[in-house]
Amino acid sequence: MEQQTEIQESIAALQGFRVGVANAGLKRDAAALDVALIVSEVPCAAAGMFTTNRVQAAPVLVDQAALAAGADAIRAVVVNAGCANACTGAHGLANAHATQAHIAAHLGAQPAQVLVMSTGVIGTQLPMDKLLRGIDTAGGALNNDWDTAARAIMTTDTRPKLAAVQVQTEHGTYQIVGIAKGAGMIAPNMATMLGVIATDAQLDAPTAQALLRAVSARTFNCVVVDGDMSTNDTVLLLANGASGVPAGVEFAEALEGVCADLAQAIVRDGEGVTKFITLVVLGATDAAAARQIGNTIATSPLVKTAFYGGDPNWGRIIAAAGRAGVPFDPDQAILTLADAEGMTSLRLFADGQPTDYDEAAAKALMQHAELIITLHCGDGDGTATLWTCDLSHDYVSINGHYRS
Amino acid sequence: MEQQTEIQESIAALQGFRVGVANAGLKRDAAALDVALIVSEVPCAAAGMFTTNRVQAAPVLVDQAALAAGADAIRAVVVNAGCANACTGAHGLANAHATQAHIAAHLGAQPAQVLVMSTGVIGTQLPMDKLLRGIDTAGGALNNDWDTAARAIMTTDTRPKLAAVQVQTEHGTYQIVGIAKGAGMIAPNMATMLGVIATDAQLDAPTAQALLRAVSARTFNCVVVDGDMSTNDTVLLLANGASGVPAGVEFAEALEGVCADLAQAIVRDGEGVTKFITLVVLGATDAAAARQIGNTIATSPLVKTAFYGGDPNWGRIIAAAGRAGVPFDPDQAILTLADAEGMTSLRLFADGQPTDYDEAAAKALMQHAELIITLHCGDGDGTATLWTCDLSHDYVSINGHYRS
Repeated sequence: MEQQTEIQESIAALQGFRVGVANAGLKRDAAALDVALIVSEVPCAAAGMFTTNRVQAAPVLVDQAALAAGADAIRAVVVNAGCANACTGAHGLANAHATQAHIAAHLGAQPAQVLVMSTGVIGTQLPMDKLLRGIDTAGGALNNDWDTAARAIMTTDTRPKLAAVQVQTEHGTYQIVGIAKGAGMIAPNMATMLGVIATDAQLDAPTAQALLRAVSARTFNCVVVDGDMSTNDTVLLLANGASGVPAGVEFAEALEGVCADLAQAIVRDGEGVTKFITLVVLGATDAAAARQIGNTIATSPLVKTAFYGGDPNWGRIIAAAGRAGVPFDPDQAILTLADAEGMTSLRLFADGQPTDYDEAAAKALMQHAELIITLHCGDGDGTATLWTCDLSHDYVSINGHYRS
Repeated sequence: MEQQTEIQESIAALQGFRVGVANAGLKRDAAALDVALIVSEVPCAAAGMFTTNRVQAAPVLVDQAALAAGADAIRAVVVNAGCANACTGAHGLANAHATQAHIAAHLGAQPAQVLVMSTGVIGTQLPMDKLLRGIDTAGGALNNDWDTAARAIMTTDTRPKLAAVQVQTEHGTYQIVGIAKGAGMIAPNMATMLGVIATDAQLDAPTAQALLRAVSARTFNCVVVDGDMSTNDTVLLLANGASGVPAGVEFAEALEGVCADLAQAIVRDGEGVTKFITLVVLGATDAAAARQIGNTIATSPLVKTAFYGGDPNWGRIIAAAGRAGVPFDPDQAILTLADAEGMTSLRLFADGQPTDYDEAAAKALMQHAELIITLHCGDGDGTATLWTCDLSHDYVSINGHYRS
């Protein structure tokens, strides 16, 4: 409740940004909101993190080009749901460019000052008439209702993802507001997630890019829903400086707070998720090995279905670690299961064999909706923390019939 | 029907091997068969392929040592279901050694002439009293009922896997008989599968090992159920020479036929499987890249749930190929969907965009229980063929509550 109040106060105080939404008829539910437009009154310093999939959707290609052309003068971002504009060839690229040009003309700006994001079904062309009409509607009713903007970019999400913070410095106060969409196909490289973070702090573009890269590595890139990685993943940071307050040393931490809130919200609202797992890997040979072990555990269907069933089947976790392709010695490993508050903790596996833990206690612990699993691998320096979830019947239902 | 007749005739003709089974009370269903013993009257040349998981179960370690000590004089293999004897430390290793010694004493052989295999829950110790009593029962009633032996090693399998062939050569006739268990956790490296192949052909141990390695690469290592890899995977080949007929150049092909039958049977009986997919990757930069692309597609939960839903959501296949971590250019890719007989074939994606295929026809094709999906990646030489399946509600049910 207190957090909600802080979010709303931060949004109300955010200067120089306006948002608008529309129902362009792009989703299966033809009455749903599906377009969000974010406009800054003045040019922004901008940064972006994009999917590392070799198949990159048209908006990803267009935004990378726009940021390369001028990351210090971005005026707007438009997001559409319902169609990903991915695997759409030259036609899809032309549609993304036409979208940029349409918005730029309204703003009296250049096309490269507009960024575009799309999410939804892969392999269908954008219905441009509908989309441009929707953009006009959104642009005609700009306000500061970021909550509704977060709703407009949802696909299989069940709730909007919104985070915001006010930062007081000796030079004054600035705000950071972020929205995101996630749900399925969330791998450690931001798969199928879109995020836009707006701040009225003063920041230059190269610093924005460096900060967004570092913070994404510890937030958006630490979430694993199903191990798939989308063609469209993008997180954008826009800084318009409208508060007149420079971003100081405190900015990175504030940005990380907003990004961590959004990233965790994505996992909690993952497709069919019933359990939220914080997976901590310690003592691996190096950070990359720790991450590889964590990622292999977090994407294992056997591990994820055991989470769903509330079964303390820790052998599957050890087996997943063993096939991660990096050094792992089960005789040195220690596996611990704890509740989210760390009030109850059980050591399940050590010295290469099960401990004499109480099976009933382990089973009771596994019924918690949030768990912390810690795997000590040995005496290396490599650590990684991932946020992941279970694999449920509903995940199969949602993804078995997503397009139908 | 004809095939069944050939299997039974081959089994009846197989010389010098005897099998026995028992109910030792190791499974949750205490009345189920759970021990199979295979004994050769004379020492066999033997070969083994084992899991590449860094966590290797006690029987895997013991068998590798036994084959290293003397792969030309193996007398018996014992398989138990219900307990994997994995993650069981020194105690588990001692239990595997005790099992070897118990059988060796009965045969008047050395412990290293006996191979052991275990499958079932990870992280519990073998109940040795029950197991040894079961082995005695099995050894006391040896016969040639390989079908029942195949039943005894099942875990979540719904049907036994048995394949056999008679091979006529200018020197006479020999037989190859194989049994396997699979079901879940089947990755391209034989995960959670156990297989025993017995032949009465004459073969030396180094040749047996080379052939089993080559044939496994094209059969057992081409199946993907869920991408997990177990701590116990093992395929053994035993050749006792009892037919008096030397294995000639035709042996490799005959062995591959038996192994392919078993491997495909494992996928068809994968946990919750409703669809059998042959995935062909062509034109990748090299064979490893082709395999990596195929494996990424075959393990993608989004691809697998779309198969389950009968949804021709080919964009997920292209997106999975793009994140495989090897060169992949969507503008060069061509994706084709066909039924198992190749009677109907639809080109879905080419030139970086969807073709003008008929959506209703694609949807109708996706309702087939068996499909062939072909992905041309470009003009490279790399090819790979994988056998995989869908991800269904039943997979989640089975694995969410396996231990409970």
